[in-house]
Amino acid sequence: MDFSIPPAAAALLAELRAFIHQELLPREPALLRAGFLASESELDQLRQRARRAGLWGPQIPKELGGLGLSLLDHALVSEQLGYSPFGHYVVGAQAPDAGNIELLHRYGSDEQRARYLLPLAAGQLRSCFSMTEPEHPGSNPTQLSCAARKGADGYIIDGHKWFTSSAEGAAFAIVMAITDPDAEPHRRASMFLVPTDTPGFVHVRNIPIFGHAGGGYDSHAELRYEACRVPLEARIGPEGAGFQIAQERLGPGRIHHCMRWLGICQRAFDLMCERARTRELEPGVPLASKQTIQTWVAESRARIDAARLLVLHTAWLIDQRGFAAAREQVSLIKFHVAELLGQVLDRAIQTHGALGLTDDTVLAFFYTRERGARIYDGPDEVHKAVVARRIFSAAARATRLEGPVR
Amino acid sequence: MDFSIPPAAAALLAELRAFIHQELLPREPALLRAGFLASESELDQLRQRARRAGLWGPQIPKELGGLGLSLLDHALVSEQLGYSPFGHYVVGAQAPDAGNIELLHRYGSDEQRARYLLPLAAGQLRSCFSMTEPEHPGSNPTQLSCAARKGADGYIIDGHKWFTSSAEGAAFAIVMAITDPDAEPHRRASMFLVPTDTPGFVHVRNIPIFGHAGGGYDSHAELRYEACRVPLEARIGPEGAGFQIAQERLGPGRIHHCMRWLGICQRAFDLMCERARTRELEPGVPLASKQTIQTWVAESRARIDAARLLVLHTAWLIDQRGFAAAREQVSLIKFHVAELLGQVLDRAIQTHGALGLTDDTVLAFFYTRERGARIYDGPDEVHKAVVARRIFSAAARATRLEGPVR
Amino acid sequence: MDFSIPPAAAALLAELRAFIHQELLPREPALLRAGFLASESELDQLRQRARRAGLWGPQIPKELGGLGLSLLDHALVSEQLGYSPFGHYVVGAQAPDAGNIELLHRYGSDEQRARYLLPLAAGQLRSCFSMTEPEHPGSNPTQLSCAARKGADGYIIDGHKWFTSSAEGAAFAIVMAITDPDAEPHRRASMFLVPTDTPGFVHVRNIPIFGHAGGGYDSHAELRYEACRVPLEARIGPEGAGFQIAQERLGPGRIHHCMRWLGICQRAFDLMCERARTRELEPGVPLASKQTIQTWVAESRARIDAARLLVLHTAWLIDQRGFAAAREQVSLIKFHVAELLGQVLDRAIQTHGALGLTDDTVLAFFYTRERGARIYDGPDEVHKAVVARRIFSAAARATRLEGPVR
Amino acid sequence: MDFSIPPAAAALLAELRAFIHQELLPREPALLRAGFLASESELDQLRQRARRAGLWGPQIPKELGGLGLSLLDHALVSEQLGYSPFGHYVVGAQAPDAGNIELLHRYGSDEQRARYLLPLAAGQLRSCFSMTEPEHPGSNPTQLSCAARKGADGYIIDGHKWFTSSAEGAAFAIVMAITDPDAEPHRRASMFLVPTDTPGFVHVRNIPIFGHAGGGYDSHAELRYEACRVPLEARIGPEGAGFQIAQERLGPGRIHHCMRWLGICQRAFDLMCERARTRELEPGVPLASKQTIQTWVAESRARIDAARLLVLHTAWLIDQRGFAAAREQVSLIKFHVAELLGQVLDRAIQTHGALGLTDDTVLAFFYTRERGARIYDGPDEVHKAVVARRIFSAAARATRLEGPVR
Repeated sequence: MDFSIPPAAAALLAELRAFIHQELLPREPALLRAGFLASESELDQLRQRARRAGLWGPQIPKELGGLGLSLLDHALVSEQLGYSPFGHYVVGAQAPDAGNIELLHRYGSDEQRARYLLPLAAGQLRSCFSMTEPEHPGSNPTQLSCAARKGADGYIIDGHKWFTSSAEGAAFAIVMAITDPDAEPHRRASMFLVPTDTPGFVHVRNIPIFGHAGGGYDSHAELRYEACRVPLEARIGPEGAGFQIAQERLGPGRIHHCMRWLGICQRAFDLMCERARTRELEPGVPLASKQTIQTWVAESRARIDAARLLVLHTAWLIDQRGFAAAREQVSLIKFHVAELLGQVLDRAIQTHGALGLTDDTVLAFFYTRERGARIYDGPDEVHKAVVARRIFSAAARATRLEGPVR
Repeated sequence: MDFSIPPAAAALLAELRAFIHQELLPREPALLRAGFLASESELDQLRQRARRAGLWGPQIPKELGGLGLSLLDHALVSEQLGYSPFGHYVVGAQAPDAGNIELLHRYGSDEQRARYLLPLAAGQLRSCFSMTEPEHPGSNPTQLSCAARKGADGYIIDGHKWFTSSAEGAAFAIVMAITDPDAEPHRRASMFLVPTDTPGFVHVRNIPIFGHAGGGYDSHAELRYEACRVPLEARIGPEGAGFQIAQERLGPGRIHHCMRWLGICQRAFDLMCERARTRELEPGVPLASKQTIQTWVAESRARIDAARLLVLHTAWLIDQRGFAAAREQVSLIKFHVAELLGQVLDRAIQTHGALGLTDDTVLAFFYTRERGARIYDGPDEVHKAVVARRIFSAAARATRLEGPVR
Repeated sequence: MDFSIPPAAAALLAELRAFIHQELLPREPALLRAGFLASESELDQLRQRARRAGLWGPQIPKELGGLGLSLLDHALVSEQLGYSPFGHYVVGAQAPDAGNIELLHRYGSDEQRARYLLPLAAGQLRSCFSMTEPEHPGSNPTQLSCAARKGADGYIIDGHKWFTSSAEGAAFAIVMAITDPDAEPHRRASMFLVPTDTPGFVHVRNIPIFGHAGGGYDSHAELRYEACRVPLEARIGPEGAGFQIAQERLGPGRIHHCMRWLGICQRAFDLMCERARTRELEPGVPLASKQTIQTWVAESRARIDAARLLVLHTAWLIDQRGFAAAREQVSLIKFHVAELLGQVLDRAIQTHGALGLTDDTVLAFFYTRERGARIYDGPDEVHKAVVARRIFSAAARATRLEGPVR
Repeated sequence: MDFSIPPAAAALLAELRAFIHQELLPREPALLRAGFLASESELDQLRQRARRAGLWGPQIPKELGGLGLSLLDHALVSEQLGYSPFGHYVVGAQAPDAGNIELLHRYGSDEQRARYLLPLAAGQLRSCFSMTEPEHPGSNPTQLSCAARKGADGYIIDGHKWFTSSAEGAAFAIVMAITDPDAEPHRRASMFLVPTDTPGFVHVRNIPIFGHAGGGYDSHAELRYEACRVPLEARIGPEGAGFQIAQERLGPGRIHHCMRWLGICQRAFDLMCERARTRELEPGVPLASKQTIQTWVAESRARIDAARLLVLHTAWLIDQRGFAAAREQVSLIKFHVAELLGQVLDRAIQTHGALGLTDDTVLAFFYTRERGARIYDGPDEVHKAVVARRIFSAAARATRLEGPVR
């Protein structure tokens, strides 16, 4: 076992950290005040600086102009980027585009690659991923209603989606729709690339979340597909392969999210320590002298460090043995890190007192923006049940082979 | 012991409940979308209806036109009102006016009563309470910097305050300021009634909280008092009595808040049950069939019921024996209910999945709006330390009287 | 609402408290060292003293020589008694005899009353209650295997039971056995009074629990009923009424246990405060000055007080409106107080440091002895699921009557 | 980063696992029933088998006849050994001997090495470590009262110790005593090797813990040193070096304990899964189908895996850069793993229902035996405060170097 980070990765991480601290953090308060939509041009300038610094596309394959990092290295990068809400965006590693790039790279046709993937990887356009439906629990992807009927010259898509993040301003959506309702559940759906200017692609609203509908990249749309016609070539991968493709999109995405959350944890931790050290309860008596704060700091440190190793180990396992070998770990890290994120943010806010409720620190932003971590990609409660069943099956197998547990 | 609610109170609670469910809740989504400021005229109409229904001013003394309820009865009323974010407002029981009414009723001069208290109790104007300062922890009221220097014909107030709720649009502020920095800590400050149009009363900004600066009644101001001159008669009560008056304002206010929080808990609980019963995971299998949700519902029910009795007992104790006899209980209920509120809201949101993040239910509003419950009036952590020291002192006394604990 | 304790009850509680502190606690360490079995004669002397002090049988009906208290008054008494592991025993209110007295009082035949109930109520003999089976979860009483076949002159009982508490030395067992396996589940079983010297009543062992098999009253037996013949008159109540009778035994028993646990909580709380106040970390710096201990003390106080009111309210409700009206509350208090008990004991031990692990305080005894609180009478997890389903049903009814929840 | 276990270590771990499962676990119930003291000869036979299998002394230096593993490899071994309460003992890696071996190896004189260390490392005699005093908190080692006065021909030790584990039957104690009360706190104490047959070495009692005084290796003694005379050569290391030596003993001991606890966690986890899979609530419905159990299993898996990586990383860090570089981590793992241990054991017991309370599984043994984990070597609460202060200092340094935290 060797826990050291290789020199090349360490150098990249150092550059990244410098970029975030010198270029991004000083601009962050103004960017947050203005919002993503109004900040697009400033963010584009930051993207250009990142590109010049050789930081563009850490997870993007080299042939598409990125750094082509291993999953483990990308994990370490994603943690650094998570430190700021704008981190992933300025190096082109933001969801949902990151997942869509990978998906199209693996399954896209030559035309799809040329027309959509290349400019997407270059940051010239944006995309969205349209799967969740309000009428069905996101935790059960066999419960979709959105359907794509096949006609002579293409498919007609009808359906109702929501939480299609970043749909406003996106050039295209990747849509999951039922193509064969009578197939066995995991073969029912297919994926389609639907340009957002296709007739029948209806943007109903940006859903207001904790009082904010947001806009542009920073929005979550409710959409309707109303007799939305696409050609046969709009399908991504084979018919019925929708779930399988979505699954494959999941593994790296999970690592990406968990390390991003750990980056946020680290930011909250740093702010908590800073506030504790500098806020005086009375002259000469800092908040840091209080045992409750000390307890929060110590517990947070241990939990962040442990969770970080758990995710890095999972990334390493996928790198070494593929996603299928790490299925259990990929479920574990989801709920483990999402819960931790909620706790660390809550304690950091409480440490700040009234200030923590205000937009004068980034904590309030993270507190609402990341409350969804315990919900999206399947609520934590579902992940726990799923992974436990997997563990019970493995235990049953082991017992058959090795005899009873004592 | 008798846990039954007397018929008169029960009848009032039934009327109140009917009013909230029939008059208020149907309008609530539109009111929330528009915000308090834009809803003022509609809220005024609701106030008139409440007045006609005999529900105005449950906590306001009869001689000021209210119902003059006991603290215990007001507690039960406050719970009902808490069910909606607009409940207290439409019957004239909203903070900070409720506390200011009580304060002026007890300590106001005849002129202050005539000019400010009567219209305040009648809902014709609004007020604010200006105590917390950004430079000092709210938990230690001896750490104020705001000072009122006494001159020949009045006081000159200089200071920096924040989280002066509802300052925008208020007719006057009640301000806590140091009048004698050399007195012993609890005799240093005095209270002043400062009309908001007084020169030197500077409204710096409405502080953005979780992304919302709000407006009007629904805002939390940062203020500066810049050589703000008030006559000698602006003082409320004797010089040096600021802390004592603030303390007295506290007891009923604590009951009011805790029961309001419990009303919110009940709202979240009802929504959680409703969602669990009606959301289907697959046809015929409601979310309510999942043990995790069942656990949340059962635990929440037990905790809400227990906390409710704890607060009611405290209100009863104050009614019977006065605030001083209930000091320990008043601290206990603060952190106990505030923590519960956070937990119940969090679980209700989680039960709703992605919907819980949106403004399509009232939960998201409560989640951010009430995060401050664990912070304002002194962070929970401070209350725990204070009440523990009180318990240790009582234990030391008991040991001296009764011999050692075995 | 009136939270005051009536003078008569208050006087009894004061006497009881004096008895426990003056008579019982000084002897407690020696009693604990020797164990129940070796302490029987000393405990009998204490019983006589309690009897002379007019404290015998608080829950026993007056016609059986007890005090015949209401359930609410008995609840308050049970809390006091719980302060010591020997409290209930020395006044004749100990489980399982207390429940058996009530059961026989209600359902026993004249002969059963004369021969068993009267001496049981007088403390002249002991009894046990034989229901739980190792092969079936205690949470599902329809899963019994123990069967009583009816013959011409009586029943033949065959079965395997465990956790039949206090069987060693008991004069008789009340046994739950299936009499009609084809009846609907809740009509399958009947109850029988089986003298322990009946042939076929086999005491397999006292089950070692956390390393202690105990003995006499203080033991939990594994039993076998091997063709154990009893006459027809051994049946208690009608055939098929076993579950119903067991249910009725439950309500008062639950109050009894929960208040006993709260008495233990109070003992642990007192010890925790005492240790904190008197243990010095360095000269002049008591443990009580540490914020973590302060937090534990404050939280424990709030939770104990709240839980106590919850149980007292439940007892009051049963007194006023019967057990059926309080079914939900009876489930809520079980898990709510059992969890609290575990937490308070754990914190009290942690406050004592290494001393808390030793038998030099009573905490270690309670820690293992009461770990079962979260398990017996149905694990907490089951109670939560059951009560949630009841709440969902009530919510469904309310919605049908009153319209949808908003 | 490389998370793989090198082939040599993997082979050793496999052998160890086979030994534990084949040789130790089948005998474990009988050993537990009989207790350590009565099982000594059987345990000696198991030691011989372990020795023959090449498993003796994983942490013992090669020159003393052990395997001389790195700390990281020993960590992995300790986890395997922790699976059974007898694991460490049968390979000669049990506390407190393991720590004493290391201490004497580093600081012992030639005579001490020849006479005590060699037979200790060979398992021919036992030892104990006598530091904690009942009058002083173990968390503050500068608060000792035990004193060693220097005379012409040696030292005279007077003091009162407790929780000197395994003193009964030990050949010698290593004793911490004040040699210079006027020195600065960390230079006050020295260490002494005191044979237990020295006059004045008084074994007061084996302290009863959760009802068990134990015996022999499995005991925790209260001792008095009454004018206990030892020669000058009995001192270990220089005068005043007691604390420093104790500190050095700590690092590897912490790894050893934490991995042992994780081995216990794994045992409890396996038993929990086995019970869940095989216990039927009704025919065909295993306990494993309940979501609460699934939640416990999933959360436990994630937390165990994460904590395990945290400890392994710490061991690796000590191997690479020495104990001083890992001071923060060594504190973090203590409380992090100790808390987890308590939680996993509690959940495993709850999963077993009434069975979990009995000695029919090993869980009840671990539940009481390991409750001290959160207390010994300094209570968790103290570790959290200490490590937080270290973190705050590091943060202050970083701010001076890098500018303010944003």
